[in-house]
Amino acid sequence: MINATDRVMNTIDGGLRDRVVDELRGNGVEVFLGEKVTEITGGGEGVSGVRTETGRTVGAGLVCVGIGVHPQVELARTAGIELGRSGAIVTDERQRTNLSNVYAAGDCCEILHRVSGQRVWFPLGQPAVRQGWVAGDNAAGLDATYAGVVGTNVVKVFDLEVARTGLSLDEAKAAGFDATMTDDQSASRAGYYPGGGRIRTHLVTDRRTGRLLGAQMAGTEGVAQRIDVFAAALHLNLKVDQIAEFDLAYAPPFAPTIDPILRAAYKADKI
Amino acid sequence: MINATDRVMNTIDGGLRDRVVDELRGNGVEVFLGEKVTEITGGGEGVSGVRTETGRTVGAGLVCVGIGVHPQVELARTAGIELGRSGAIVTDERQRTNLSNVYAAGDCCEILHRVSGQRVWFPLGQPAVRQGWVAGDNAAGLDATYAGVVGTNVVKVFDLEVARTGLSLDEAKAAGFDATMTDDQSASRAGYYPGGGRIRTHLVTDRRTGRLLGAQMAGTEGVAQRIDVFAAALHLNLKVDQIAEFDLAYAPPFAPTIDPILRAAYKADKI
Repeated sequence: MINATDRVMNTIDGGLRDRVVDELRGNGVEVFLGEKVTEITGGGEGVSGVRTETGRTVGAGLVCVGIGVHPQVELARTAGIELGRSGAIVTDERQRTNLSNVYAAGDCCEILHRVSGQRVWFPLGQPAVRQGWVAGDNAAGLDATYAGVVGTNVVKVFDLEVARTGLSLDEAKAAGFDATMTDDQSASRAGYYPGGGRIRTHLVTDRRTGRLLGAQMAGTEGVAQRIDVFAAALHLNLKVDQIAEFDLAYAPPFAPTIDPILRAAYKADKI
Repeated sequence: MINATDRVMNTIDGGLRDRVVDELRGNGVEVFLGEKVTEITGGGEGVSGVRTETGRTVGAGLVCVGIGVHPQVELARTAGIELGRSGAIVTDERQRTNLSNVYAAGDCCEILHRVSGQRVWFPLGQPAVRQGWVAGDNAAGLDATYAGVVGTNVVKVFDLEVARTGLSLDEAKAAGFDATMTDDQSASRAGYYPGGGRIRTHLVTDRRTGRLLGAQMAGTEGVAQRIDVFAAALHLNLKVDQIAEFDLAYAPPFAPTIDPILRAAYKADKI
């Protein structure tokens, strides 16, 4: 894995990125950061590898190139449909564009981020499907609205679950919040229960109000669904002391007595 | 497994109980329901088995007897501390008993159930620990309160996760709600992703207001933490249409595009 930038995932914080790199390397992936691929080598018989800007050659039978995504808006632009600063289509909460009776939904659209209050480009499957429902309902004469996102997503890297919701510390500061971040590590199961691993949790909090602004988690189990509790809290503008009150499910195979969610919320509340 | 009553878990609804029985039998456990054990057989060499009221004999090298739990309140009673209808100690939200400077915490106490508004006996580890913190803080001169529970719990039966939070349909009706229940089945992962299983979700809703009153789930993965999203919703008295708006984490290894939580909430909202 050869990465032009010095980080493997732009979407998560440094501490959690380290766990991603560890997981990749622990599974035999060679990771080169801050190094540009300049050439794919090979000929008529197929690819033989790549060469980088440092002159390094890496052999390969298959080369996968990840160059990011961008909204496909050519049809919209030529039709005179308004685009936002992100380059994606502007809609209202009913998925209406600026053209009468023309709706847009999915990865070509901007979307309301409920935490920052800004319209952002956030091309993910679940919001796309739900925007489609809203557009369809409204096109068919019903009155439906889309509530927007809080920025929840999750990926699996070998056995590591990496999830986030809301704003990162940098995003929160950029959005004008007096934001601070706490870092907590917790077991994923009761100490005496076999198996499990460590869950690392970052919470971003508004120092002035105690409101949760974002959460990031990484661990080998129980992360993909735990992030949803923070997502629910963000939907409701909760403060971290309200999250710390939650009565969450405990049994030794699934959590320590005080769940990683609660531990992280207590810690953030103290600060 | 020989059960005097006709059900394996009193705490969950019939549809989910069937999955528990299937899981037990699928793992080689013989399950006899509605049949009382009348005798443990054996002698000086140890136990040889049990005999039931129907005359059935079942061989065994070890007999485990589950007869339930009750609050240990003898010390409290002799000290003149007030007990509630459940037989457990009455405290206020600061864990104070009726005796000055005497606090109580844990399985010997009643606890506020936030959904029914009633003080109930709910002897589980996480509430016990947190009541202890509150009692300790107050005894040491701080001012702490315990927010109460929404009735969340989870158990693991071989590979099956069985969880609930809030009120069951019967409990909701008994508490005076115009309650109804929806039943949904969903895949635990995207259809094309290997592995996973089915998650069955029951939601109990107040027909008059649309407020969520309870949730029960059973499945082979992703249940123990998903129930926590419903628990969070119960803490905040949310309606099911508010839950249906949540932006939850989606990736093929962890959920279908529309999470079982959202599916169930949509279904409940329609009713």
